Amino acid sequence: MDRDAILLTPGPLTTTLRTKLAMLKDWGSWDADFNAVTARVRERLLDVVHGHDSHVVVPLQGSGTFSVEAAVATVVPRQGHVLVPDNGAYCKRAARLTQMMGRRVSVLPAAEERPVDAAAVDAALAADASITHVILIHCETGTGVENPLAEVAAVCERRGRGLIVDAMSSFAALPIDARSVRFDALVAASGKCLEGVPGMGFVFLRRAIVDACAGNSQSLAMDLHDQHVYMGKTGQWRFTPPTHVLAALDAAIAQFVEEGGQPARLARYGDNCRTLVDGMAALGFEPFLAPEVQAPIIVTFHAPAHPAYDFKRFYAAAKARGFILYPGKLTQLETFRVGCIGAIGRNEMQQAVHAVADTLREMGIASGAPAL
Amino acid sequence: MDRDAILLTPGPLTTTLRTKLAMLKDWGSWDADFNAVTARVRERLLDVVHGHDSHVVVPLQGSGTFSVEAAVATVVPRQGHVLVPDNGAYCKRAARLTQMMGRRVSVLPAAEERPVDAAAVDAALAADASITHVILIHCETGTGVENPLAEVAAVCERRGRGLIVDAMSSFAALPIDARSVRFDALVAASGKCLEGVPGMGFVFLRRAIVDACAGNSQSLAMDLHDQHVYMGKTGQWRFTPPTHVLAALDAAIAQFVEEGGQPARLARYGDNCRTLVDGMAALGFEPFLAPEVQAPIIVTFHAPAHPAYDFKRFYAAAKARGFILYPGKLTQLETFRVGCIGAIGRNEMQQAVHAVADTLREMGIASGAPAL
Repeated sequence: MDRDAILLTPGPLTTTLRTKLAMLKDWGSWDADFNAVTARVRERLLDVVHGHDSHVVVPLQGSGTFSVEAAVATVVPRQGHVLVPDNGAYCKRAARLTQMMGRRVSVLPAAEERPVDAAAVDAALAADASITHVILIHCETGTGVENPLAEVAAVCERRGRGLIVDAMSSFAALPIDARSVRFDALVAASGKCLEGVPGMGFVFLRRAIVDACAGNSQSLAMDLHDQHVYMGKTGQWRFTPPTHVLAALDAAIAQFVEEGGQPARLARYGDNCRTLVDGMAALGFEPFLAPEVQAPIIVTFHAPAHPAYDFKRFYAAAKARGFILYPGKLTQLETFRVGCIGAIGRNEMQQAVHAVADTLREMGIASGAPAL
Repeated sequence: MDRDAILLTPGPLTTTLRTKLAMLKDWGSWDADFNAVTARVRERLLDVVHGHDSHVVVPLQGSGTFSVEAAVATVVPRQGHVLVPDNGAYCKRAARLTQMMGRRVSVLPAAEERPVDAAAVDAALAADASITHVILIHCETGTGVENPLAEVAAVCERRGRGLIVDAMSSFAALPIDARSVRFDALVAASGKCLEGVPGMGFVFLRRAIVDACAGNSQSLAMDLHDQHVYMGKTGQWRFTPPTHVLAALDAAIAQFVEEGGQPARLARYGDNCRTLVDGMAALGFEPFLAPEVQAPIIVTFHAPAHPAYDFKRFYAAAKARGFILYPGKLTQLETFRVGCIGAIGRNEMQQAVHAVADTLREMGIASGAPAL
């Protein structure tokens, strides 16, 4: 039957019908009605991090990576020096885009299976006074590990360095409180834990630093200071906004608020994650991460040791049963990933585990247990 | 009544319900089904310009301006020198983004009410051998004037210089034939004359130059060479695609083909434009441009001379009647603009004229005639 698959992927993810129905209208991008949607979304995004006193939020067209690049280009001066603690693929991407735009970058290597060590960041900052900013990936989606945002933010504040947070896959699920955690920029996107559709990102910029960001960006399209100033004057986006994507995000945020906001979302995702991990464990699968460092966003599982296992066949068989899995992103180990986020709950996670069980049977794999 | 207004704006524009309904599905961005949509859209985009032999097409997240910036960043080497014939606001924007990214720019000033003069471009290229590329805005949406693409392309080819075409508001409506018109890059977007929703652009890159573009871009997100290579290997976008926007574009292109492709679309928009201009003329309004240089995309009208005229009131009264107009973009003259594009036809244009007539009556304005 033609039935939409459940996306167990870390964005795009499964959204509600109500969110998608919000896209059945065309908006004039210059019109006051649309400006009101933009204003409402910005207000509610600030609510999520309790950031009204300390931050502004600037939406940007494109994928989340565009907003990460824009945050770096806008916040880091041309002569800045950025430290990137690296425990995964998205850390490496942040370092690469920073280097490409001509900013100096230093990478602090870290183990993929563990959170970044705030003490190591502190030592790196102590050892090199030229470092002006740190980029931290809050939840490293490459593995699913949660990095210690509050601790790294405290180190940066104490050392007088700026902090840019890629909170792409954590925002609206993990707690982030701008009243107690200081960051210069924090980046997320429409199609992640707010459960909107993909197509735009947004960056929180600290009010105390935003004026000094004028002229930093070498990119017109990605100049968040310019976008901020223009939006402040006109209520409009500088360039054509993804009107339908914003309307969907507005509807998604309304549902987020109705559900109970970030604590409720974290509770649901936590339950999804436990349901998944427990169910998969019963089939022999083992997560890559220890439970205490696993964010309830996306779980990396070791591939089964059984010789009949092949990811493409495994993926296709699970898809035939209505569930879209996600490939692993580790270079050294064979893994696959399963997202816990989106408009899904315990039912969908239990069904997903049943689908994986059926898939193993079909493939003649007795157990999901990895090689020792 | 709560009824969607007709957008007489140059994108976002009014789309069909069929196009919007295509967004009621969530796609896994890694999945083969979604890759097939990407591949089909790319094939059909190449069809539009007869570009299969000469060009590749690379989609990019974000608004059309993001794709213009990406085209310049990808095609123009760091030491390149870009000439921008300037007869309007979008020319100025292209020059600005080129300068911001650190490429040398020369502007060739031109009158806003006339097309760019290909002979003047030729003379500028003859006078300065350091110019490596020309950026031409095909239809300058600031006024609505059509610039002479074929003539400027011939000049660039004869002089051995590269050509980047911003065909944002002309693509799929005005004829563009890559078999006879040589361009290095040509840029358009989802939410213009293909009548999709906004949220992505695409750039045609000439096969003969695409390999040499490696390493030009200072932006990771906007590196079209990297996007091209990755897409060639995997069929996937490098970073999260706007899945719903692409699905809508796919549906919009199917309707474009069914309508009869570019010639049929040009015929409809031409009829829209004539219906509009004739109807507005009967109310006393005068277009800014002479008919022979007016592209059937967007019409700039002089503001009425009557002292009761005020754009904000005029806009609000027309909106109350179901039509969204667009502000003027000229700095010296008071004007407003009316788009002829989108999923609208003669009926809507006639109704728009009636709405404007009623609006004038409400405002106590006897005639739309401008000051002499």
